[in-house]
Amino acid sequence: MERPRHQGMAKNTYMRWRLPLVCLLWEVAMIILFGVFVRFGPEADAHWEEEKQEMNLTSDIENDFYFRYPSFQDVHVMIFVGFGFLMTFLKRYGFGAVGFNFLLAAFGIQWALLMQGWFHSFKSGKILIGVENLINADFCVGSVCIAFGAILGKTSPIQLLIMTLFQVTLFAVNEYILLNLLHIKDAGGSMTIHTFGAYFGLTVTRILYRPNLEQSKDKQGSVYHSDLFAMIGTLYLWMYWPSFNSAISEHGDAQHRAAINTYCSLAACVLTTVAFSSMLQKKGKLDMVHIQNATLAGGVAVGTSAEMMLTPYGSLIVGFICGIVSTVGYVYLTPFLESRLHIQDTCGIHNLHAMPGLIGGIVGAITAAAATEDVYGKEGFIKAFDFTGTYRTRTPSVQGGFQAAGIVVSLLMAFAGGTLVDLPWWGQSPCGKHRPGWCFLRGVPGHSSCPCTRAAIQSLGEGQL
Amino acid sequence: MERPRHQGMAKNTYMRWRLPLVCLLWEVAMIILFGVFVRFGPEADAHWEEEKQEMNLTSDIENDFYFRYPSFQDVHVMIFVGFGFLMTFLKRYGFGAVGFNFLLAAFGIQWALLMQGWFHSFKSGKILIGVENLINADFCVGSVCIAFGAILGKTSPIQLLIMTLFQVTLFAVNEYILLNLLHIKDAGGSMTIHTFGAYFGLTVTRILYRPNLEQSKDKQGSVYHSDLFAMIGTLYLWMYWPSFNSAISEHGDAQHRAAINTYCSLAACVLTTVAFSSMLQKKGKLDMVHIQNATLAGGVAVGTSAEMMLTPYGSLIVGFICGIVSTVGYVYLTPFLESRLHIQDTCGIHNLHAMPGLIGGIVGAITAAAATEDVYGKEGFIKAFDFTGTYRTRTPSVQGGFQAAGIVVSLLMAFAGGTLVDLPWWGQSPCGKHRPGWCFLRGVPGHSSCPCTRAAIQSLGEGQL
Amino acid sequence: MERPRHQGMAKNTYMRWRLPLVCLLWEVAMIILFGVFVRFGPEADAHWEEEKQEMNLTSDIENDFYFRYPSFQDVHVMIFVGFGFLMTFLKRYGFGAVGFNFLLAAFGIQWALLMQGWFHSFKSGKILIGVENLINADFCVGSVCIAFGAILGKTSPIQLLIMTLFQVTLFAVNEYILLNLLHIKDAGGSMTIHTFGAYFGLTVTRILYRPNLEQSKDKQGSVYHSDLFAMIGTLYLWMYWPSFNSAISEHGDAQHRAAINTYCSLAACVLTTVAFSSMLQKKGKLDMVHIQNATLAGGVAVGTSAEMMLTPYGSLIVGFICGIVSTVGYVYLTPFLESRLHIQDTCGIHNLHAMPGLIGGIVGAITAAAATEDVYGKEGFIKAFDFTGTYRTRTPSVQGGFQAAGIVVSLLMAFAGGTLVDLPWWGQSPCGKHRPGWCFLRGVPGHSSCPCTRAAIQSLGEGQL
Repeated sequence: MERPRHQGMAKNTYMRWRLPLVCLLWEVAMIILFGVFVRFGPEADAHWEEEKQEMNLTSDIENDFYFRYPSFQDVHVMIFVGFGFLMTFLKRYGFGAVGFNFLLAAFGIQWALLMQGWFHSFKSGKILIGVENLINADFCVGSVCIAFGAILGKTSPIQLLIMTLFQVTLFAVNEYILLNLLHIKDAGGSMTIHTFGAYFGLTVTRILYRPNLEQSKDKQGSVYHSDLFAMIGTLYLWMYWPSFNSAISEHGDAQHRAAINTYCSLAACVLTTVAFSSMLQKKGKLDMVHIQNATLAGGVAVGTSAEMMLTPYGSLIVGFICGIVSTVGYVYLTPFLESRLHIQDTCGIHNLHAMPGLIGGIVGAITAAAATEDVYGKEGFIKAFDFTGTYRTRTPSVQGGFQAAGIVVSLLMAFAGGTLVDLPWWGQSPCGKHRPGWCFLRGVPGHSSCPCTRAAIQSLGEGQL
Repeated sequence: MERPRHQGMAKNTYMRWRLPLVCLLWEVAMIILFGVFVRFGPEADAHWEEEKQEMNLTSDIENDFYFRYPSFQDVHVMIFVGFGFLMTFLKRYGFGAVGFNFLLAAFGIQWALLMQGWFHSFKSGKILIGVENLINADFCVGSVCIAFGAILGKTSPIQLLIMTLFQVTLFAVNEYILLNLLHIKDAGGSMTIHTFGAYFGLTVTRILYRPNLEQSKDKQGSVYHSDLFAMIGTLYLWMYWPSFNSAISEHGDAQHRAAINTYCSLAACVLTTVAFSSMLQKKGKLDMVHIQNATLAGGVAVGTSAEMMLTPYGSLIVGFICGIVSTVGYVYLTPFLESRLHIQDTCGIHNLHAMPGLIGGIVGAITAAAATEDVYGKEGFIKAFDFTGTYRTRTPSVQGGFQAAGIVVSLLMAFAGGTLVDLPWWGQSPCGKHRPGWCFLRGVPGHSSCPCTRAAIQSLGEGQL
Repeated sequence: MERPRHQGMAKNTYMRWRLPLVCLLWEVAMIILFGVFVRFGPEADAHWEEEKQEMNLTSDIENDFYFRYPSFQDVHVMIFVGFGFLMTFLKRYGFGAVGFNFLLAAFGIQWALLMQGWFHSFKSGKILIGVENLINADFCVGSVCIAFGAILGKTSPIQLLIMTLFQVTLFAVNEYILLNLLHIKDAGGSMTIHTFGAYFGLTVTRILYRPNLEQSKDKQGSVYHSDLFAMIGTLYLWMYWPSFNSAISEHGDAQHRAAINTYCSLAACVLTTVAFSSMLQKKGKLDMVHIQNATLAGGVAVGTSAEMMLTPYGSLIVGFICGIVSTVGYVYLTPFLESRLHIQDTCGIHNLHAMPGLIGGIVGAITAAAATEDVYGKEGFIKAFDFTGTYRTRTPSVQGGFQAAGIVVSLLMAFAGGTLVDLPWWGQSPCGKHRPGWCFLRGVPGHSSCPCTRAAIQSLGEGQL
């Protein structure tokens, strides 16, 4: 009987060194890759003085920093405080939610700077970065935070880091296909961030399905204070979403318009969320989960179209619909997904990101297809859709078709990616007796009857925080 | 004995549908009105490229978005996180405070965009909105959040929505009288937001007076964590108040000056709040309620004059006085108002908004009356008070008189408005036996002896959240 | 036996009046000094219209307000919410941490505006202030907040105000020596803010050493919610640190670069903090104290060099090292400092600010010494180090030497200042029997055996909040 204990100790020692090793080696890799590839872009480089003269700029205020830095900081708050605290509603996973979100985002932004840099900012062998790259890196990591919401409480930090590496890579590829090859617009990332991130996470959680998880449901309850902490996350996401959707839009009217559209959509979404939350609950009480999540669906759903001439009332309509869809999703769809499709969606990202993301992609396609020179003005029309060079002759309806194709591509990438990650292989072995990944492996006989599954759920659920 | 129960069920069904119906119908109304009236302003419209050429602007950075968006986001945080969390200090109303504040503000900003738009941004049949409209809508809703502070824990969400509809409407009328007819300055809204909002709320709470409320005083206590949550609200209001008072000032020096004056006033206010809180308490301990509220009075009281040449030491003096007035108010005036005037001011808005708002109006009138071309410069003088067109010949002392008149108008509008709303009629019936509004109706015999009052207090107090 | 009680009452009365008197008298002094000295700078004055014409500026957007105000607000949040909430991790000092931090910062910024104004913005007998002065005042107070972290739970509010007065004064002198006399660069304050503030605080806590403090260790524990509150502080410091390090950099590329370098350093720091926290703990669990603090060390350590051409990978390396140094410090150095050197460092500022600050100074010196015209460009080189006028002929290696001298000066000023403050003299007498300062005085026989020390620890520990 000594042996298992011995093995357990060996496993503990192994575990103790694995997370540090992964973190250190990856960070060393980042330093080497940054050393080889990453340099300051022209607006952040000390040669800017000369650059300014060449570009005939008379003032430092023309530096992109002043156009985008306030929005960048708002996005930054959304990623770290918004997503982090939104997930603190479970009384047992508060630390894990905020802490692991912090870890994966801090790693993810570095890898995203590289991946997105190779695709979009690569000039004469170097990636030249500026504030827009920082925003895009935060966006990319946002899609990982979304996926994290589906698997919250079911993974170890190492699994999260592995997932981040995979997902950021695929995100950059998908983004390249959409923005560069299909030449579509998606400033607020309805497709690239929300649809992709959510379906990626849902595929991963499907693979991580553990039938016995319901036994630990008592840990999933919320308490008064955890709900107030979660409201901090909700409100920061809600307030700063106009910055999110406008952060990388074209200077001037496009940024301005994207903020207004998002503001309107979010406002309408709150009203329909409250309406349906009250209507679908017994006694007409409001459900805090709906208030915390469904109120944000309006921001997701104008992600693609916010910088277009969606108009304020168009935004209200989108928000109106999404508040309903998202709340109904929490009440009817989440239980269905778990019981029938074995998809345990801890934070309900299917309702907050997946469905609204799809709606956002569709709204974007329609808005693009309906664009006319009359509405946008001659120059505004070309600027809004970047119909220059190769794309000079593209018509709005063709653009709408490509936008729709972007949704399909994002979905396929998400399903394929989520399946490929295969987190169980990288996971913490539940008992220390089998090699990592064994117990959770799909198809292995006795998976659900493994005697140590329950212990595993507990140790993983509480994470290492 | 079956009947009352049956009635109760009927009432429950009725209640269950009322909030959803109000939310949905009103949101539909918003969509229709936005569809008919609201369009993007020139700086948010895709025609901006042509507009720029007409206005001879060489850079996108001249778009009003870049002048005001960072301040807008700070104001946005104040309304949703600041006011929301400031009211979480009561251990039982934390959800209600944050959640209902969220609901009323999200509805209010839509109605405010319309009301203020008709008065100020109406051109050829359309309301043209930009970032300044978003700030003004947030401002308008701020006055509703203030009023909410007086009635916290005493109303249902429907009553709050009714109050929001009324108050936003009256706010816009009052603002139109002050800014357009009287041509007075009130950038930070000492009169339009704080004086109006606070006396409106105090009038409403006077009408909602329930003598038995003291029986539930055990629910009004604060606990350690609720006080820390409230400090989040306090600090965000305190930090971002310079943005609040400068958000809609003229570009350039006026915005800059407003931020500095507010920063100074708030800093001084903290010192006198601490001094008087310690002095007036037994054992010299500090009262968290004073720290949470009275420290903010300095921001309210420079609302009108912040963009004027109040000077940093003038701001310190205003903050110095307001910290004292507000703290003394919490210690002596709030109990007096409740016991003698039957005004139950849950959050003490009389001390934080009403009195400092009045002081702010008076300071503004004096600062305006004392203005000289010497202090402001020839051009600066005209720009600061917009002494152009019809008002070309107005003198500082006349301006001071009009500023003072603005205080009186705001007070009258608040009293009249608060009385007209008559929330009890819209309220939740306490027992389900009488029609809504019955038990709480002023002057009805037996009001305080209604056998179900106590149950009512409980059910309302806990709200629907 | 009546007498001690009587004395106790006398002392209570005395205490009750002392804090209010200090607050009121000091605020009156501020008003008088502001009245004599402080006026609006040209960009905040109503004469700006004329100023603009003289400076040949065509747009209000050229006002410094628009270059710096968003960063100012981020810094403001760091000082009041960041530092305030970071210190709430102790379950008993949550109020004290946030409340006293609020008080000292609100007083400190006023005194800092004066002190720094006399040294840097004094023109024809007046201190002319603008947004940059507000940022600098916040920076100065930041160093006091850091020092507060070392003595948290050991001082009364009056002692904190005394310390603030001393430290702000010395900060301004030290800053003047470094920036003006030695002509060194320190935009993010690795030396002036962090090294100076931390060693000042550590010297003060050494003097306040109380051997019996360990008896009250049960009060120092953290609880679940206090750790989540502390994470709010951590995340806001982490997210806004790029704004901190870039807030007063030169317009244009320098601000842009400082933000990018800080972003990179902080990201790397999180990974090594997690690695070493997991490695050095039993069972490989993460320690929340490390996550809350060591993750920020990367921001401190690029404070001096962020605006230089440190390059993104250079920043990653600095962050990499600092995460390790800081975490190891928490595990091994903090206990050593307490047991051997009698330095009770409540929040571990030696690991978060002192060591990373020193590293930051050294990295700055090396980066400056390694600067070449090739890397910076001819104009960029002169602009980056302000090699104009008297300093036209200074070479990078000489600049590096001066930078290194700045570290030494900051250290000496901190040790001298911390010793001179001698807080115990100003303190609350632990028992009311001896005059203030008696029991805690260094070298007094029977210091540790004073019968009332324990009561003192309790009453002081809980503070007046």
